Amino acid sequence: MIGYAFMGAAHSVGWRSVHRAFDVPLAPEMRLLVGRDPAAVGTAAERLGWQETATDWREVLTRPDIDLVDICTPGDSHAEIAIAALAAGKHVLCEKPLANTVDEARAMVAAADAAPDRVAMVGFNYRRLPAMALARRMIAAGEVGTVRHVRAVYLQDWIVDPEFPLVWRLRKDKAGSGALGDIGAHIVDLTQYLLGETIESVTALTETFVRDRPLPGDAGSAGLASSSGSGRGEVTVDDAALFLARFAGGAVGTFEATRFATGRKNALRIEINGSDGSLAFDVEALNELWFYDGRRPASGEGFRRILVTEPDHPYLDGWWPPGHGLGYEHSFVHEIRDLVEAVAAGTPASPGFADGLQVQQVLEAVGTSAATAAWQKVVGA
Amino acid sequence: MIGYAFMGAAHSVGWRSVHRAFDVPLAPEMRLLVGRDPAAVGTAAERLGWQETATDWREVLTRPDIDLVDICTPGDSHAEIAIAALAAGKHVLCEKPLANTVDEARAMVAAADAAPDRVAMVGFNYRRLPAMALARRMIAAGEVGTVRHVRAVYLQDWIVDPEFPLVWRLRKDKAGSGALGDIGAHIVDLTQYLLGETIESVTALTETFVRDRPLPGDAGSAGLASSSGSGRGEVTVDDAALFLARFAGGAVGTFEATRFATGRKNALRIEINGSDGSLAFDVEALNELWFYDGRRPASGEGFRRILVTEPDHPYLDGWWPPGHGLGYEHSFVHEIRDLVEAVAAGTPASPGFADGLQVQQVLEAVGTSAATAAWQKVVGA
Amino acid sequence: MIGYAFMGAAHSVGWRSVHRAFDVPLAPEMRLLVGRDPAAVGTAAERLGWQETATDWREVLTRPDIDLVDICTPGDSHAEIAIAALAAGKHVLCEKPLANTVDEARAMVAAADAAPDRVAMVGFNYRRLPAMALARRMIAAGEVGTVRHVRAVYLQDWIVDPEFPLVWRLRKDKAGSGALGDIGAHIVDLTQYLLGETIESVTALTETFVRDRPLPGDAGSAGLASSSGSGRGEVTVDDAALFLARFAGGAVGTFEATRFATGRKNALRIEINGSDGSLAFDVEALNELWFYDGRRPASGEGFRRILVTEPDHPYLDGWWPPGHGLGYEHSFVHEIRDLVEAVAAGTPASPGFADGLQVQQVLEAVGTSAATAAWQKVVGA
Amino acid sequence: MIGYAFMGAAHSVGWRSVHRAFDVPLAPEMRLLVGRDPAAVGTAAERLGWQETATDWREVLTRPDIDLVDICTPGDSHAEIAIAALAAGKHVLCEKPLANTVDEARAMVAAADAAPDRVAMVGFNYRRLPAMALARRMIAAGEVGTVRHVRAVYLQDWIVDPEFPLVWRLRKDKAGSGALGDIGAHIVDLTQYLLGETIESVTALTETFVRDRPLPGDAGSAGLASSSGSGRGEVTVDDAALFLARFAGGAVGTFEATRFATGRKNALRIEINGSDGSLAFDVEALNELWFYDGRRPASGEGFRRILVTEPDHPYLDGWWPPGHGLGYEHSFVHEIRDLVEAVAAGTPASPGFADGLQVQQVLEAVGTSAATAAWQKVVGA
Repeated sequence: MIGYAFMGAAHSVGWRSVHRAFDVPLAPEMRLLVGRDPAAVGTAAERLGWQETATDWREVLTRPDIDLVDICTPGDSHAEIAIAALAAGKHVLCEKPLANTVDEARAMVAAADAAPDRVAMVGFNYRRLPAMALARRMIAAGEVGTVRHVRAVYLQDWIVDPEFPLVWRLRKDKAGSGALGDIGAHIVDLTQYLLGETIESVTALTETFVRDRPLPGDAGSAGLASSSGSGRGEVTVDDAALFLARFAGGAVGTFEATRFATGRKNALRIEINGSDGSLAFDVEALNELWFYDGRRPASGEGFRRILVTEPDHPYLDGWWPPGHGLGYEHSFVHEIRDLVEAVAAGTPASPGFADGLQVQQVLEAVGTSAATAAWQKVVGA
Repeated sequence: MIGYAFMGAAHSVGWRSVHRAFDVPLAPEMRLLVGRDPAAVGTAAERLGWQETATDWREVLTRPDIDLVDICTPGDSHAEIAIAALAAGKHVLCEKPLANTVDEARAMVAAADAAPDRVAMVGFNYRRLPAMALARRMIAAGEVGTVRHVRAVYLQDWIVDPEFPLVWRLRKDKAGSGALGDIGAHIVDLTQYLLGETIESVTALTETFVRDRPLPGDAGSAGLASSSGSGRGEVTVDDAALFLARFAGGAVGTFEATRFATGRKNALRIEINGSDGSLAFDVEALNELWFYDGRRPASGEGFRRILVTEPDHPYLDGWWPPGHGLGYEHSFVHEIRDLVEAVAAGTPASPGFADGLQVQQVLEAVGTSAATAAWQKVVGA
Repeated sequence: MIGYAFMGAAHSVGWRSVHRAFDVPLAPEMRLLVGRDPAAVGTAAERLGWQETATDWREVLTRPDIDLVDICTPGDSHAEIAIAALAAGKHVLCEKPLANTVDEARAMVAAADAAPDRVAMVGFNYRRLPAMALARRMIAAGEVGTVRHVRAVYLQDWIVDPEFPLVWRLRKDKAGSGALGDIGAHIVDLTQYLLGETIESVTALTETFVRDRPLPGDAGSAGLASSSGSGRGEVTVDDAALFLARFAGGAVGTFEATRFATGRKNALRIEINGSDGSLAFDVEALNELWFYDGRRPASGEGFRRILVTEPDHPYLDGWWPPGHGLGYEHSFVHEIRDLVEAVAAGTPASPGFADGLQVQQVLEAVGTSAATAAWQKVVGA
Repeated sequence: MIGYAFMGAAHSVGWRSVHRAFDVPLAPEMRLLVGRDPAAVGTAAERLGWQETATDWREVLTRPDIDLVDICTPGDSHAEIAIAALAAGKHVLCEKPLANTVDEARAMVAAADAAPDRVAMVGFNYRRLPAMALARRMIAAGEVGTVRHVRAVYLQDWIVDPEFPLVWRLRKDKAGSGALGDIGAHIVDLTQYLLGETIESVTALTETFVRDRPLPGDAGSAGLASSSGSGRGEVTVDDAALFLARFAGGAVGTFEATRFATGRKNALRIEINGSDGSLAFDVEALNELWFYDGRRPASGEGFRRILVTEPDHPYLDGWWPPGHGLGYEHSFVHEIRDLVEAVAAGTPASPGFADGLQVQQVLEAVGTSAATAAWQKVVGA
């Protein structure tokens, strides 16, 4: 695994736990953790349960005992590592967004296509929340009929304070974009996954409410400082991205990704209205899926709160009795389960790199629409 | 109508509005409002829409143009007025609790029995909330199966402050009891109404957390002051009453009525669990009824929030389109509708005085159980 | 009052009740109800409490005993009636939307300007829900700081069934537009009212999911039938309207008005995120306002559910103790209260016709943006 | 660890994860898993991550490489194992309830007292949910003032179906009691923990709604069958237990534990009302704690939903950013953390065996009260 910050820790839970919860055909071995700082990566490896460490990610390419590379670095290094790993015959799990640009993502898809017997998966973990997988199953089974409306927001508030520092996620060169690529990517992927349809066109706006911020303490001597001359630097990404969308099947949608929704900590909320029913969901209450069955008489009907903890709900066979809820990190255990099964079966993983590219194309259309103040067709749609 | 405080104002809404919302066979005329203070009753009559006023309630007995007497006074005068009114050939609506003691209630039932062609109704208005009437209909139709559990609380917080004054509702001589008779009576009546079954036995405790309070400003020279000698008087009723109950049909219940539930303003909450389903309700969200259908597979089921605003819901034919909620006062419009229909049809009203007596007997059993620390059978059960 | 359907009934509640709940300087007299069908208007007048009836609305112009005209007709007749009434020296309350076109609305504002001593009010009743008035007060007091995000939806589902008939609200000639003018107008007005700021520009889409519908039974012989030849007619308005907006003060917003949100009966929902706090509201739970105070430590903070039933909440001095909720219709009582007070004081009412025009201009910009697939500046902004 | 069913799996998560999430002074080694069926225990050990297996629990007593014994068996074997383990110089974690009878529990406390340098902890895992630990911290800090009311239910529905088989949890000889000891024990422990006060007296009822059930399939040849002669056996424990309680500090409480609350899967709900504030919690939404601050003006106050996912919330330093919720199993990781820290520090663990005994004494008082229909003082209180 390359990288050991937030995502590295979350993926490690998946690698450690998958065979404890599920009957998987292969039990993972956590061989090598890579990071640039030797002391820090050593500490992380011990904490997270990795056997060895390295400071150069290229070491994974030549190790015959490593079958799979898990990329948890910032988006600007995804393409280089993933392409090299695939070329070296490794399976790859790449954290989302697949890349910082469509061009990089395209190259990654080409690399995956050139290694058809290798699994190349992109880590949209929220698909693996049981409530989302159940929603997908219900929509595919026709329980909401023809989808008319999609309403998706991803609301956070961690940078509302204008004195919050200029971390890498607020710099375009590292992160590619701001709320759009970080959390907007999730709601683009999730809604398309749920509907089984792609977004065809968008009209968008983006906004940066706080345009400069203090440089992080540990960056005092870095080149960054020169951009402000006063210990502050320019925020080069969006704080918020809003867009309207038309889906291929005729549904229309509103989307909003923001880090300025005071009080909303991790409110990924999706509501879908169809001709026969509706579904609603919020990651802040991730064990619940709300369903309205429009085929029944309205006098006895209402949005019902399905506790997604029954044994026949997706992924729940590995866990606890009804009502004993799961948490955020379980999405990674499920992601790894699906990945391991794909590796063992020699089948493509879903979402694959092509799905990651398509999400990137939607995000690019959003960015272009916001920059040009015009509707934008999604390339490839 | 006798009395014009909180309940008088609420009943007046019912009298003014019933024929505006519903096709009732008789349109009420609001003839006479009675109160002891001539100036105050005059102001109230003009505000509430009553044609004339009087200061002696006995005037209603001899007025041939008055067909019905609505009693909104404190509980200690209910019996005297109701019995006289029935004897004078008037229909009677008496605010709950029917009386302060079982003996008084018994005399009132006797008076009602002696006037079989007069309607004698007790004002348990919460039965007339559409959600409660719908719950009754669903339970009677078997939608929850055999009831196993009843969970009923009525939580308020208006006397949490120990400096809140010693108003009449905190004096046993005026109010009969405290939370028990004032709000506990509602949950006793409602749960018995919903189940169509009576409570057979109880074990209870009552508590008075704040045992003396400042005398109200306008009571300075009254006899009350003597009980404290310092501008404070003794609280002679319960602040809270809690009990367990067994119903005739085998269900068991927990009940709690309190004025010390900080932050709960008017939380009358009832949950009923049956062999085939469950219902839940809260007056603080009075347009909603929650239903769990246990006859369907658990994987697709959850408590559903029925917005009780559909045209085929009880009482909703008189009101607005779906989703346009009603308020607390509508319960009184519905109460008056049912009363007027009973008067026109010459049929008994429900709940009648016998129902009021039965509730009183349950409350008495609660009081006795609390005093004796022993299970108590409800007299008559 | 002209018109006696849904809005006519709702306004009548206001006229009947305002002086029963509040100390208003003038008690309204409900003189004349106007409708084209003499039998129907007679029945309605008796039901709703109006003294006389007429079949020609022009009768109100010449009646010296009529001081105020309340217009509850479809939007295509608002301008003609309002302009005539103002010219005849009457005060006017006009149901929203002010008119079906900006041109009509402009003429109405001119008429109001020409009668400066007459009150000309437009009926955006949701401003008068206590929770909305409280939200306005809190935002004005700075409790959310600088507003960053507005998230407003108005979701209904009454025409999801494709066999629901082609009623007047689905015809452009009568209604002007569909969801946009009927319910979208409310969220445009409410959000601008809450922020005290106008919308400056929009990008929009509209959609008509069901393009033809059965003609209503009673329209069999009307010209409408010719448009389908088969008992069906074309839907000439939008089923749904979605738009992004930029406010004058820098906030960005998403808006959605639809009649195709299966299971959402009357879900007017607004969330506002500011630099110091957030507010959230849903008409389906109209006695609640949710507030997050971002100025306090996050570890003890969360969205709090304020039950807007305290005596010091807006309009609550006229009603019941805490926790005894109000309903939809109370918004009309409050609207009439504010109107009567403006008439008595000789001050302009708010929202006045100019406010109605401005909302109309926003709606027009939305329509134009949807038609041209381009961002549109709001005229006058 | 002895036992590998539901609790065994849950404890294993704790043992595997504690040093991955937290800086603990000792990293556990998962040495030996004990179970009677050699094949099954082998499979379980591999799944759950234990190094070796044994079929006789006594093997743990003589293994010098085993420092701590974790007892996850049914309640009837707790005393024997725990006493032997303590005598053999092992630390002990014993799943709740501590024992099936007060006598056994007393013997266990004596054994713990005789081994003062050994940690003897009882596994009330719900104390370790961050929301519950935060509630405890807030109550101890005076944020709710003097506690007046406790309202605690633990509602499940897994045996509502009368054809659900007669598993060991429904047999008094194995389980000691039914809902009372299994889930009632949790709410007794939790409420006492939260208040820092004990229950002094109770009045109770218990009920068994379904009195016989099919014998489990694999018990065909067992002695059980003889009790029915027809493939059914008698249910010898309570389906539901309800009681009222008085706490040492003057608070009063209602308690209910049931397996017949149709639709409630794992609804452990607690509400506490104090003179200055209130708290409410539900395990079905375990990342939320609701708080009402009664010291602030009611007009701006309401129950606030604290998402207990902030870094300064209890146990949250080991996990994810705000809003990324935890699950049920995390309570066991936290339990093991506290246990490991106690072992390392040589300090007693909390809750210790004496706490387990005290809970058992409350449960016994409940059982006695239900049997005698009289208030019962808790022994030792």
